[in-house]
Amino acid sequence: MVSELREFTEEQDFAALRSWLEENGTLDITDALSRLEPEERALPFRLLDKDRALAVFEALDPVHQQQLLDALREERVRELVNAMQPDDRVRLLDEMPAAVATRLQAGLPPEQRAATAALLGYPPGSAGRIMTPDVTNVRASMTAADALAKVRRAGRRPMRSQMLVLPVTDDERRLIGVVDLPDVVAAEPSTRIRDLMQPETLYVRADEEQERAARLIQEADLIALPVVDREDRLVGMITVDDAMEIVEAEDTEDFSRVGGTEPLELPYLSAGVFQLARKRAPWLLTLAVAFTLTVVVLNSFEQALEALPALAFFIPMLIGTGGNSGAQAATLVVRAMAVGEVRFGDLTKIIFREMRVGLVLGTTLAVVALPLVSLVYTVPIGTVIALTLVGICTWASFAGGMLPLIAKRVGIDPAVVSSPFIATLVDATGLVMYFLIAYAVIGDQLTVAAAALGA
Amino acid sequence: MVSELREFTEEQDFAALRSWLEENGTLDITDALSRLEPEERALPFRLLDKDRALAVFEALDPVHQQQLLDALREERVRELVNAMQPDDRVRLLDEMPAAVATRLQAGLPPEQRAATAALLGYPPGSAGRIMTPDVTNVRASMTAADALAKVRRAGRRPMRSQMLVLPVTDDERRLIGVVDLPDVVAAEPSTRIRDLMQPETLYVRADEEQERAARLIQEADLIALPVVDREDRLVGMITVDDAMEIVEAEDTEDFSRVGGTEPLELPYLSAGVFQLARKRAPWLLTLAVAFTLTVVVLNSFEQALEALPALAFFIPMLIGTGGNSGAQAATLVVRAMAVGEVRFGDLTKIIFREMRVGLVLGTTLAVVALPLVSLVYTVPIGTVIALTLVGICTWASFAGGMLPLIAKRVGIDPAVVSSPFIATLVDATGLVMYFLIAYAVIGDQLTVAAAALGA
Repeated sequence: MVSELREFTEEQDFAALRSWLEENGTLDITDALSRLEPEERALPFRLLDKDRALAVFEALDPVHQQQLLDALREERVRELVNAMQPDDRVRLLDEMPAAVATRLQAGLPPEQRAATAALLGYPPGSAGRIMTPDVTNVRASMTAADALAKVRRAGRRPMRSQMLVLPVTDDERRLIGVVDLPDVVAAEPSTRIRDLMQPETLYVRADEEQERAARLIQEADLIALPVVDREDRLVGMITVDDAMEIVEAEDTEDFSRVGGTEPLELPYLSAGVFQLARKRAPWLLTLAVAFTLTVVVLNSFEQALEALPALAFFIPMLIGTGGNSGAQAATLVVRAMAVGEVRFGDLTKIIFREMRVGLVLGTTLAVVALPLVSLVYTVPIGTVIALTLVGICTWASFAGGMLPLIAKRVGIDPAVVSSPFIATLVDATGLVMYFLIAYAVIGDQLTVAAAALGA
Repeated sequence: MVSELREFTEEQDFAALRSWLEENGTLDITDALSRLEPEERALPFRLLDKDRALAVFEALDPVHQQQLLDALREERVRELVNAMQPDDRVRLLDEMPAAVATRLQAGLPPEQRAATAALLGYPPGSAGRIMTPDVTNVRASMTAADALAKVRRAGRRPMRSQMLVLPVTDDERRLIGVVDLPDVVAAEPSTRIRDLMQPETLYVRADEEQERAARLIQEADLIALPVVDREDRLVGMITVDDAMEIVEAEDTEDFSRVGGTEPLELPYLSAGVFQLARKRAPWLLTLAVAFTLTVVVLNSFEQALEALPALAFFIPMLIGTGGNSGAQAATLVVRAMAVGEVRFGDLTKIIFREMRVGLVLGTTLAVVALPLVSLVYTVPIGTVIALTLVGICTWASFAGGMLPLIAKRVGIDPAVVSSPFIATLVDATGLVMYFLIAYAVIGDQLTVAAAALGA
């Protein structure tokens, strides 16, 4: 499908392009456009009719929106940016070089400029930054008929989920509740709005974090959440589609960090090789430096390695298993924290559980490893490996379960200290454990062999 | 807050419990209840007034719902289950032992039983299973006034997002479009519904995957998505709150697998030690078995290790860094696949990009490592380490970028082959690379030392 579009674009086959665009839906067109090279996108986009063009533009990722604007005439750019919803426009402006953003804002009609400036006044990441300032509110003293008349006056507009839930305010625009549009429609026309309000009023303050707003919408199954200022005055609404985007972005961030990389903040295929490397190099370098600990540990056990080189054979398996079991614990705890199931107060409970889980897992592995290693190598080596597996799994699960909670407590993103970080930590400490167990179990053998080598 | 609730519950202090329940919102009560032990939950729950009790019950996780039902009287159970929405009820029934589920269904009023049975008729994971069958549809030939009258007749009910978007059908209940309630309210009463319909009609078939429906709702910013049968007849709607839950569950699944564990499918704190161990042991065992490859590789390079034990010092650092850079590539690609940015057709593009990224990253690390290792050990060893870092990072990024796409192609969840799996693969192959480079650079030294040892 993309190849078709690309072919028609390259050949500048207008007729084929037009019919392709007519046959496909908005989402398919958006998807295909994102997959074209940035400079190829302008031609098919210009062939879209006006309504469809706006719909496609709104569905594009902010990065792609900006690339597309770069290729369009100034007038068309202004048209598109004016037609966007204020909160989407702010997201686009945030992606742009400051000079371009300022010029675009200057070109907005006064009303839109005011709405945009208001949103840009809130700090990035705050609820205010992503709310829709343009909401239809009703008063508690109105009747259902009055409220419907007000919705009717607001006119037919592109679908706006904020009109599905109407915030109810007092005479000073202070939020006192919300009412669902279906309830207003279904009510006797003379019913007071006050009697139709939802029993509970959930809201956020404009300076609170977006993520809190998004999780509230998600947990309470809301369509829209009112946003108020410090005086409890209604300033906007955050809608469920924005909440989904925020939750998705948060999940992507956690997901990236758990995989040992910074989030890209733009679609994978739109990131250049050096952009990708720049997001990954700091992690890789930091972890590689942390790995020098393992070099130091092994260096200090050089004698044992010289005496019994077979000890080296199991290093990757032991530290790998330790890293994996630590990563399991950390992953489950990080996710449970993200979805709000677990918090710092649960620390002791989690530590206790994870140590027991680690013990169970380590013992399971030891039971498998002991006969195998004893058979291929010797019973003492088998014993060393089995004991180390038990110790390493218990310790790794303990560390993996505990560190994300502690990280959050001291203000670090818990996802940062999960998998790769914990694996590195467990590697060095696991090696110390391994050699200490080896000395305890087969110490005589190691010393005798070392003496023989020295002689 | 939880400790307060627990204290009042243990002391059976009804007055304190009642006032605590009155002071807190539905979400806070739900959260606090989930944190109590299962047997402690019934007492405070029974003290809630009827409406609040239903709201709290609906907000609980299905696992906690079931635990609560176990502790309530049969009559109260029937009341709660009857009051649930059909799709939420099906989710609860899915969690229950079959015998209990059957008994509960038998106790439903006929209409509810029919709706529930219809949903249970669709396969688990399908769109039909999670839709709301009880939707208010309108005909294209109706006027806005007729449509509003129909919504009014449907009556005031607990907030239902499916009434915010009305599916439009023909005389045979075949779906022909959707109309937004605000548009109907805002329109002239005599306007035909046909003229108010949204320009594009998105829908899913009942037997399609839930995930497709959820991603469609998310990408197109929908409030509700119509579900049709094989004859294009409207059978229900999937609402945005269900879509959020599905996306969240999918993310949790990917997240867990990337961390090397099966998803828990119940809240972390509600899972027992053995339940946790059972989800993790298969992964840990499989990976540990895969690690025997590294034992075999090292065993076959025993001579080199005997000749130069210092080679062993760098094993954790080299394979750890390889694992990390493979995990980075895999994580980014798995996430890009999950959110629909990347698909199999992009394979060559991704491979080419990832190899270049790996080369850049490996070279960066090599530049840091070469002088350091040369200084502490020798220049030849420094050279071996530097070359191995370049090779291992390039190879790991290549494997990490490619394998998730190939996995999906052959029907395996891509998240399964990310981080831990790739780290294990890269470990064994990375070691082979390491020793081959060592032989190429300092082969004479290794052979001479080996000969001396043999002598």
